[in-house]
Amino acid sequence: MPTVIVSTIELPEKAKELLRDYDVVLYELPRLGKEELASALSRAEVLMCWCGREFDLTRSINSMPRLRVIQTFSAGVDHLPFPVIPSNIEVYSNAGAYSVPVAEHAWAMILTLAKGLHRPVLNAREYLGNEITSPRRIIESTLLVLGTGGIGLEIARIGKEGFRTHNIGINRSGRPTEYFDEVYPTNQLLDALPRADIVAIALPLNKYTKALVSEKELKALKHGAIVVNVGRGDVVKEEDLYKVLKERQDIRFGTDVWWMHDGHEEIPPMTPLTTLPNFLGTPHIAGGAQREIAEYAMIRAVENVIRYLRGETPMNKVSISDYV
Amino acid sequence: MPTVIVSTIELPEKAKELLRDYDVVLYELPRLGKEELASALSRAEVLMCWCGREFDLTRSINSMPRLRVIQTFSAGVDHLPFPVIPSNIEVYSNAGAYSVPVAEHAWAMILTLAKGLHRPVLNAREYLGNEITSPRRIIESTLLVLGTGGIGLEIARIGKEGFRTHNIGINRSGRPTEYFDEVYPTNQLLDALPRADIVAIALPLNKYTKALVSEKELKALKHGAIVVNVGRGDVVKEEDLYKVLKERQDIRFGTDVWWMHDGHEEIPPMTPLTTLPNFLGTPHIAGGAQREIAEYAMIRAVENVIRYLRGETPMNKVSISDYV
Repeated sequence: MPTVIVSTIELPEKAKELLRDYDVVLYELPRLGKEELASALSRAEVLMCWCGREFDLTRSINSMPRLRVIQTFSAGVDHLPFPVIPSNIEVYSNAGAYSVPVAEHAWAMILTLAKGLHRPVLNAREYLGNEITSPRRIIESTLLVLGTGGIGLEIARIGKEGFRTHNIGINRSGRPTEYFDEVYPTNQLLDALPRADIVAIALPLNKYTKALVSEKELKALKHGAIVVNVGRGDVVKEEDLYKVLKERQDIRFGTDVWWMHDGHEEIPPMTPLTTLPNFLGTPHIAGGAQREIAEYAMIRAVENVIRYLRGETPMNKVSISDYV
Repeated sequence: MPTVIVSTIELPEKAKELLRDYDVVLYELPRLGKEELASALSRAEVLMCWCGREFDLTRSINSMPRLRVIQTFSAGVDHLPFPVIPSNIEVYSNAGAYSVPVAEHAWAMILTLAKGLHRPVLNAREYLGNEITSPRRIIESTLLVLGTGGIGLEIARIGKEGFRTHNIGINRSGRPTEYFDEVYPTNQLLDALPRADIVAIALPLNKYTKALVSEKELKALKHGAIVVNVGRGDVVKEEDLYKVLKERQDIRFGTDVWWMHDGHEEIPPMTPLTTLPNFLGTPHIAGGAQREIAEYAMIRAVENVIRYLRGETPMNKVSISDYV
């Protein structure tokens, strides 16, 4: 019997070709009528999803009695409705699919902020004398990366190889990782923060990382620190960030990720963060920039599903207990 | 007899310490009264200078009959009044003193422009759909560097090691240089331009480089090219740049250096360049950002003068025929 795969989006030709070697039936939801949809869901063993506004998993999960695997196209899975997902379903993320463009965006924000390019003025004295724009040297500075997964690793690599940074990593266990000179477990974050010239947040959002960076952590930052967040908005506490950035003009903060309210990312955010001169924001575009990136991410998700079809262990298994 | 050195600016303590091992008398002009000044100039064998508005070399050169060496604190020497400098005087530049911060600034402008951070909007569809801001991928792109001296080399190194760029260099002779995969002489610039995703201009201004990048060169740029200039403004022809940037919104151009009018850098420039959405400008601050950078540059200049004191060959001898 063929394995029935349902994808919430249309897949690129290259991804479909990969599936042709296997005994599968693929349904792409945007191509289906209402009746075909119900039938496809009822037969689905694998769901490949962008489970956002286009596809409401909470409403559909009961229509998929044969579902065994959820493979996301996104790197993060914090948006999934874990409480309604039956425990016999395995969830796999697409972590790593966006590492390179997101790490590039992180470095673009770091350098923009470090050199004052977020608020350039054409008067040299004013540019150099203003705490908001005065250029900071990058080479041989200390880079602290929160999260040593695919994105964090690539941020560390660019720092180390491009700018000879001294790299400190934070992850759950404190296990050593390539491109990091030192790694500590999350509970030592407060000790590491005052040492960093640059802080890059590349953590997934789960119950361990939610509001990990709050007032105490932000106040522990070194004078003149540059901080960027390309993980998830809610790793940082929004109100605390606004308060500390307003008080400490020496800190420059850039983010591509925002805070969730009523199930969606609120842009602009609830606080007047975007009015602060030491704040730089982009609307969650680091990973989804180009067609080629999206295509690569979809192919990567299909490759992971193929591991399942072959009876191998797919990558990026999500530990549901991290989220509920 | 001690060697008399005149510096147009006060030197940092560290630089003066270096001179204590030699038989020298050092005069720092800001510390002198009018009569002492005349006496110091009349005895000067070495002039260390910022020959800008603070010290007018054209007016003072005749007061320095014993002058043998001019050592600049600046990396470029295009501002020196070469026609009035007697041919028995040797001129040494401070090329390389600012390579690291200027290369960092070049990369900051490249990444700012590549990721649309010069004009960020908070609507993702608008951000990704607009030719002015849509993010460009950096990794493995082709980087063309005009000028393979200290700054150009460091720009190429950051590209190669940080972002795995394919590096093409342009210099006068086409001689191979570290961190460059290919190097061509200046007369092959037009062949190289259409291949480059990123172009960095790091050339000194002299009679060979003036207006080297004009309408023909700018029109030869690849669709979507990112161009930054950290050399000298007049290497690019201002009117042509304005014309081409206005026509081709796909090109994004950043500059830290501007065009000379009546002996000084005109900021903002004569054309309305700074109003264009695909233009990013900073007021010549890449090299002079921090006290530590200025101090390092002054020490480096003193070290070069010490080579002269020891009878060694100083570095960065300026070939005056490049300028007159």
